[in-house]
Parts: sequence; structure tokens; C-alpha cells
Amino acid sequence: MFEKMNLDDFVKQVASNEPVPGGGSVSALAGSLAAALSNMVASLTIGKKKYLEVEEDMKKVKEEAIILQEDLISDITRDSEAFNRVMKAFKMPKNSDEEKAERKEAIQNGSKHASEVPLNVAEKSLKIMDLAKIVVEKGNKNAITDGAVSAMLARTAGLGALYNVKINLSSIKDEEYVSKMNEKVTEIENALIQKEKEILDIVEL
Amino acid sequence: MFEKMNLDDFVKQVASNEPVPGGGSVSALAGSLAAALSNMVASLTIGKKKYLEVEEDMKKVKEEAIILQEDLISDITRDSEAFNRVMKAFKMPKNSDEEKAERKEAIQNGSKHASEVPLNVAEKSLKIMDLAKIVVEKGNKNAITDGAVSAMLARTAGLGALYNVKINLSSIKDEEYVSKMNEKVTEIENALIQKEKEILDIVEL
Repeated sequence: MFEKMNLDDFVKQVASNEPVPGGGSVSALAGSLAAALSNMVASLTIGKKKYLEVEEDMKKVKEEAIILQEDLISDITRDSEAFNRVMKAFKMPKNSDEEKAERKEAIQNGSKHASEVPLNVAEKSLKIMDLAKIVVEKGNKNAITDGAVSAMLARTAGLGALYNVKINLSSIKDEEYVSKMNEKVTEIENALIQKEKEILDIVEL
Repeated sequence: MFEKMNLDDFVKQVASNEPVPGGGSVSALAGSLAAALSNMVASLTIGKKKYLEVEEDMKKVKEEAIILQEDLISDITRDSEAFNRVMKAFKMPKNSDEEKAERKEAIQNGSKHASEVPLNVAEKSLKIMDLAKIVVEKGNKNAITDGAVSAMLARTAGLGALYNVKINLSSIKDEEYVSKMNEKVTEIENALIQKEKEILDIVEL
């Protein structure tokens, strides 16, 4: 759905007073662009005599990047849908005990789903960091800064998605679930920041 | 041109083995999305009783964000065109002294232009930081993380653009020009990093 919108219309839709697409969807788009940039550096390296030695590495990067890039572009819509599901649950009637219980369950399930979608975006963003590192270290030197932009976008995508995980966790009563998710959040958060730093240190201009 | 491409096609175009659109154009898109997210938070604040006190601030944010958002979406194409101009200059014939001189001048002028376009993107990204700070401090609390994503995208947009400034400066012989540009680069770079940090410290979830 959103992936078929043109850039100009999408930006305007983000800017509107509708809560979706918001930071979650934009983070997914940032992730897709991050994957595409690492993919591009690999593409600009493959077939170049000077880089024959790393040709296999680059082909592998390309293969993984394409999957992430396509998956993340679908996450733009997936994230907005997950948000809408939670909003819909909050608007359910609560006149009887039965209705209240149904509404509560819908909110809980919806919130779990809405925290899992961005967690998944964050996990993919972390995978992109590994691709960005390979292209920055071994790829076409003329495109090294594209690898740096890939890493910075992956950080934004990942950390942006994790904010959305945390917001949704705040409505979830299942403490064990929340604590497990929080552990993952912290782990991915630290890894994203650390890996981006490592990559940017290599690119130093 | 690029702004009328759909998200899916644009991402694929980035990923291709064409050097444009690359990190420079993607940085401009990141900037446009950053402006749009601050715009959205302002839009979700305006008209809300609870936020009547900050209504004027939000209207001002919205006004400035729209301009930046639209300007940056045009920069996607502008950056790719500037890159193409430099590439074209490098391919100019150099058989005679006259041709050599012409080529040299075209490279110098093209490189100056190609460093000024992203410098301008970086300056706009820095302006977005100020908008993101206002919406995170005073805007609708339900959308505070959208303000955080805005700031992170503005950092990526700005630093990504500055990489492109630096690359182009490396071909320029006019030392005074390079030194003045480098000063600006360092100044904006530091400000972007500092301001993003300040904003994320406010959002702490």
C-alpha cells in the first residue's frame, strides 16, 4: 500500500495530522533505504577488476540486502496497520463486563503485535549494520560514504523502531513478556549504537 | 523527478549499480521525512485543548517544516544532478590544451556546485533539529517519539550530506574555498550531533 505511493505524497501523508504513517513506518522506510544503499555499494563493486577478490562477499551482501530491503518496505504498511489495530481496540465498547474483557484482550493482543512488528524492524536494521560494515571495509572505495549513510540510516531505523516497541510495551500487563522484550530492546539498542560507531570510524574522511 | 517515483521503485533505483540516486539523494529524502515528522507532531498538537498554550509555537513549527520538507524533497533530484554534472565534466575530452583547460574548469565549477548542494541539505537538517526540539519539549506527548525519529533522521540527513560535501571538496583546488567550506562542515557536524543528543535525552522512555 504505502510502497506504491510516490515520495512526495508519502512525505505529505507523514506530515498530516493522521498519526499514521508516523515514526514507526518512517523507520521501516529508513531501514529499506539503508539496505538499498549497502546493496548499491555491493552492486558498484561486483564486476570491477580491482575488487575481484571480494566479489563473493559482495554477492552475498547483495543477496541479503535485497531480502531486507523488500521486507522492510512492506513493514512501512505493516507498522501502520499494527498501530491502527491497537487504536481500534481502544475504541471498542465497554458497557458490559463481557465487552470490557473483550476490549482488554484486544488491547493486549494488539499491543503485543504492535511491539513485535517494530522489534522485527530493529532486528533487520541490526543485520543491515553487518552488511554496511562489509561494504565499507571491502567494497568500492568510491562509494564508501554511501556505506556510511547506510549505517546511519540503519541506526535511525533501528532506534526509531525500538521507541515504538517501548511505547507499546507500556500498555502490556504480561510482565514476563514485557521483561523479555525489554531485554531484547536494550541488547539491540546497544548493538546498533556500537556498530554504527565502528563503521563511521572506518569511513573517516 | 525522483519525488514522483513510488517508494518501492525509488528503493530499487537506489540499490541498482547506478551511482545515483545514492547517499546524497537519500540523505535529502531523510531530511524531508525528518521535517515531515516534526510537522506531524505539530499537526497532532494544534487544536487540542490541552495544548492551547503552545498553539502558536506549533503553527510556527508547521510553517517552517513545510518549507524544509518541500525544499528537501527537491534536493533528492538536485543532488543527483549535481553528481551527474561532475561525472560529465570528468568525461570531457582532453586532447588539446584548450580542451584540458575547459575540462579542468568544468570539474572545478561542477565540484563546487556538488559540494554546495549537500551543504545546503545539511544546513536545512540543522534547522529541523530546532523544530524537533520544540515539538519534543512542548508538543503532543503521545507523539513524542515521532519527534525523536525526526531528530535522528535529521542527524542522518545532515551528516550524510556532509560526507558528500567532503568528497567533492577533495577535487577542488581553490584552497580558500575549501578551507571556508571545511569550517562550515565541522561546525554543522558538531551542532547536529550535539542537538540530536539533547533531543533524545528529553525523550528518554
